[in-house]
Amino acid sequence: MAERLTKDQRREALNDLPGWSLDPEGDAIEKTFRFAGFIEAFGFMTRVALVAEKMNHHPDWSNVYRTVSVRLTTHDAGGLTELDIKLARAMDRLAG
Amino acid sequence: MAERLTKDQRREALNDLPGWSLDPEGDAIEKTFRFAGFIEAFGFMTRVALVAEKMNHHPDWSNVYRTVSVRLTTHDAGGLTELDIKLARAMDRLAG
Repeated sequence: MAERLTKDQRREALNDLPGWSLDPEGDAIEKTFRFAGFIEAFGFMTRVALVAEKMNHHPDWSNVYRTVSVRLTTHDAGGLTELDIKLARAMDRLAG
Repeated sequence: MAERLTKDQRREALNDLPGWSLDPEGDAIEKTFRFAGFIEAFGFMTRVALVAEKMNHHPDWSNVYRTVSVRLTTHDAGGLTELDIKLARAMDRLAG
């Protein structure tokens, strides 16, 4: 099972993830993506869904028209792990 | 533009929509759908996305693994309209 990141590891990872922020408890990272419209927003979600399923690691996320708000945490580990960082990087890449 | 439903119209519509409930302000209807896993949950979202885009009326929704929580309201009308009822019916149908 993936291990929880230390405080230093979290800080280091976030330096490379523009727009992502740590939640107040330090157990998750969050970002809101904005797109041109629903088609673009849901297209992004579809690309992420395929990658997430392949990683067997899934986002907690919500969508309101052209906005997608994401929260990443590793439920099994009770906090933030390398899996979340990998998925965050993939989402940034897929958001174009 | 779609008109807001009256209190009677809302009550009548909800009678035909099992699992949906009115939010405390009466401005939106909400339901949580549960599926076998992520593939089924996101598959549902994809089917709904196509219908919503065609209707030009989109849900506010969130997904955590096998759960999809939905909130329907007509932002332009500042409350619940026939569009929300139509989309709710479509979602129930697409959830199988």
